[in-house]
Amino acid sequence: MRTIHLALLGLGTVGTGVARILREQARHLESQSGARFAIRWVVVRDPSKPRGIELEDGILTTEVDRAISDPEVDIVVELIGGIDPARDLIARSLRAGKHVVTANKAVLAKHGRELFGVANASGRVIGFEAAVAGGIPIVAAVAQGLAANRISSLAGILNGTSNYILTAMHQQGIGYDEALAEAQRLGFAEADPTLDVDGNDALQKLAILSRLAFQSRVPLEAIRRQGIDTLADVDLHFASELGYVIKLLAVAREVEGKLALRVSPTLVARNHPLGQVHNEYNAIKVTGHAIGDTIYLGKGAGMMPTASSVVADLLDVAIGRAQETFRSLKLWDESPPGPPVSDDGSMPNRFYLRYSIRDEPGTLARIAGILGGHGISIASVIQHETSEDDIGSAVPLIIMTHIAREGAVRTALRETDALDIVRAPTVCLHVAD
Amino acid sequence: MRTIHLALLGLGTVGTGVARILREQARHLESQSGARFAIRWVVVRDPSKPRGIELEDGILTTEVDRAISDPEVDIVVELIGGIDPARDLIARSLRAGKHVVTANKAVLAKHGRELFGVANASGRVIGFEAAVAGGIPIVAAVAQGLAANRISSLAGILNGTSNYILTAMHQQGIGYDEALAEAQRLGFAEADPTLDVDGNDALQKLAILSRLAFQSRVPLEAIRRQGIDTLADVDLHFASELGYVIKLLAVAREVEGKLALRVSPTLVARNHPLGQVHNEYNAIKVTGHAIGDTIYLGKGAGMMPTASSVVADLLDVAIGRAQETFRSLKLWDESPPGPPVSDDGSMPNRFYLRYSIRDEPGTLARIAGILGGHGISIASVIQHETSEDDIGSAVPLIIMTHIAREGAVRTALRETDALDIVRAPTVCLHVAD
Ligand SMILES: NC(=O)c1ccc[n+]([C@@H]2O[C@H](COP(=O)([O-])OP(=O)(O)OC[C@H]3O[C@@H](n4cnc5c(N)ncnc54)[C@H](OP(=O)(O)O)[C@@H]3O)[C@@H](O)[C@H]2O)c1
Ligand SMILES: NC(=O)c1ccc[n+]([C@@H]2O[C@H](COP(=O)([O-])OP(=O)(O)OC[C@H]3O[C@@H](n4cnc5c(N)ncnc54)[C@H](OP(=O)(O)O)[C@@H]3O)[C@@H](O)[C@H]2O)c1
Repeated sequence: MRTIHLALLGLGTVGTGVARILREQARHLESQSGARFAIRWVVVRDPSKPRGIELEDGILTTEVDRAISDPEVDIVVELIGGIDPARDLIARSLRAGKHVVTANKAVLAKHGRELFGVANASGRVIGFEAAVAGGIPIVAAVAQGLAANRISSLAGILNGTSNYILTAMHQQGIGYDEALAEAQRLGFAEADPTLDVDGNDALQKLAILSRLAFQSRVPLEAIRRQGIDTLADVDLHFASELGYVIKLLAVAREVEGKLALRVSPTLVARNHPLGQVHNEYNAIKVTGHAIGDTIYLGKGAGMMPTASSVVADLLDVAIGRAQETFRSLKLWDESPPGPPVSDDGSMPNRFYLRYSIRDEPGTLARIAGILGGHGISIASVIQHETSEDDIGSAVPLIIMTHIAREGAVRTALRETDALDIVRAPTVCLHVAD
Repeated sequence: MRTIHLALLGLGTVGTGVARILREQARHLESQSGARFAIRWVVVRDPSKPRGIELEDGILTTEVDRAISDPEVDIVVELIGGIDPARDLIARSLRAGKHVVTANKAVLAKHGRELFGVANASGRVIGFEAAVAGGIPIVAAVAQGLAANRISSLAGILNGTSNYILTAMHQQGIGYDEALAEAQRLGFAEADPTLDVDGNDALQKLAILSRLAFQSRVPLEAIRRQGIDTLADVDLHFASELGYVIKLLAVAREVEGKLALRVSPTLVARNHPLGQVHNEYNAIKVTGHAIGDTIYLGKGAGMMPTASSVVADLLDVAIGRAQETFRSLKLWDESPPGPPVSDDGSMPNRFYLRYSIRDEPGTLARIAGILGGHGISIASVIQHETSEDDIGSAVPLIIMTHIAREGAVRTALRETDALDIVRAPTVCLHVAD
């Protein structure tokens, strides 16, 4: 039986999970691949740190150069994260003739074109199933299982931290700060949760997935982004009242020959399949011309789910399948055949508008008139009866629109928000179909 | 660019879809695979039948021998269905050096071992993504995406016809016969729906999936089967009252080192992900030791979804990936390493019991006493107040148990059903976790 030698860069959350699966499932992996995996090097920053796994003597090192240039090593598994030094290490590993498997969405979203170029030039592959939606085999589903389809849209809950926080807010009726603290206590949010709650993590994953699904070049700047950190608690309450939950949705959709992309808090009907995805789970809905709607759901992060996808990639390389895929699909081609990305990411949608108004006769009529003038029709309204106390203060007026052009909505909002009866900038959220 | 020549056996629902994708997506498929597909032969029974697609002159034929022995043909696509002549045609095609792609669950579930043996001996592959859950790429997910996992259970809604009928019964409150008629009118059930509603179709798919997921030999006889054709409307009403829906669930689970399998109408909590799968949709929940729960949802049948999976297999062969998978995974190995199949398919479960009882004091106590004596504890009970009219007639008593051993439940039922107060055989259904 062949032995495949690995260099593991990083032995943190995911690295430890990978080492554990390789050890505990050794027999199973041999029967799946016809090969044996041996960890030759494990590279870390601090070799004195206690580790959650026992390693063979002499394989733990800080000497990354030695690991990636070791002629015995077949595959470098990059689980350090971030841009530097990951970008450089991946490129050098490929040039040294190693295949690379990585869970690093940040470096692929930003430098994918460069790194896939190096891989192609070196005749080596980059496996990245773990970089998107942790344990869900969505990269393979999109690149292979649905390959006969022209994909028209993707919509995903791609950030487990945000989804955990939103679920807690909806189900326990708590505010954002309390929900974030709970997520941190339970290990679903990091000490610095910025990249998760501001939508950047979901944006990176969306960029990678859209690249595969639409075969378009997707510059990160082309993706409109809003995180859950800007969300007001009151909008979750109104969403609930209307039969919706708010989810951080990452959406890519072909609109009139262009690819529109965004990440934003979105109202999803409570009985919509994506409205049922709770806590740290991720899910992706993919719509193809032949297949219609398909949905993939699972844990999007965590030690073992993510490691499961890393090891699936190792098996793919061991079997030789990854090499065939890479050769033929020309992933991250220089000039991909897909639709160009739209400038402003706008797509026709239903919208949720929360006005802060002075409650006086004729207010709704004036606002509705302006919306109507821009071709935006109203599907439903919530305006609660005001009490004595409210007189003179701003009260909320919720409007759900029918499908409207995003540009028209933005223009209309500029007009309505200039009215004297509108007391604060109007909150505008997308509503999922 | 290479050209790959196909012989299509069958131009019915799925065959027409395949021919359509090959024509309409030719450019897209070329960019996905680096190869061009050309249909060399289309074999049908009746060449004079009008077809939903135009074919090149001279390729429609009834001469199947000529098609499968044509040295130019690279892949035979078997879309005839059934056992005979499909079994023989697949074997002969493989021996003639052709790869085979098929959507035929019946022949694989029954003669998989023989046919995969021929494929291995001939150095050719059998692609069968379309044979299970139509458009959902579940075969690849289980065999590749989750390959790092030890899978502990599978639970799926694998028959779109049954699911359509059950959805209609629940949502419209109509009876079985009316729902079946509606499904037939809308094309979701065939004129003879037997194999769908009696659970055999789901059973065949479960056998194939379990073979992959557990690497066990799964004789069809080892799978316990009950269809929706035996279901009483009243059980759907009680299920609803309890917050459940009834789904035809196909389940395979490792229980104490053995693989237990069954297909049966099962109560699924209304807010369980599988309880939300409506109409003709299929879904499969796969639980792995590393990944936890994952769910795959999509259309399980129909022209284009099924054709999408057939064409995905064609791409896999064109790319060379299918060959690598086949070589290493030793699908349908003679002596698979997975757990042996249990004799009686019984697994610990919660149960729904509907008694028909004579309504008299102490009845519930007597029944509960017998259940308790077998270690079965009661989670909830429904017994409606009886009216004057009911006196002397049988009234329903619904008992939901906590998790219990299936053997104990069967023994207890034999005892309770022998009581004079029990007026008809008790209905016993599984309840999903
Ligand atoms: N955690 C998840 O749930 C998850 C899910 C999906 C994808 N990912 C991705 O997986 C990757 C790894 O994430 P993680 O959560 O496992 O990170 P982590 O727990 O922070 O582990 C990082 C590891 O890299 C090592 N390291 C950092 N800088 C290094 C350097 N310059 N040279 C050598 N070693 C260095 C660290 O060494 P020390 O141990 O000595 O500090 C540590 O072992 C990231 O790209 C992340 O985005 C993670
Ligand atoms: N329909 C679905 O949604 C679906 C979904 C998943 C899997 N499948 C599977 O796909 C396969 C095909 O199903 P289908 O619905 O497409 O069937 P279908 O519509 O009944 O078509 C069968 C085709 O096979 C041809 N045929 C039958 N016997 C033949 C013979 N002895 N020699 C040559 N040709 C023969 C028929 O020829 P004529 O046209 O001349 O009668 C017809 O074109 C089956 O295995 C089925 O289980 C179907």
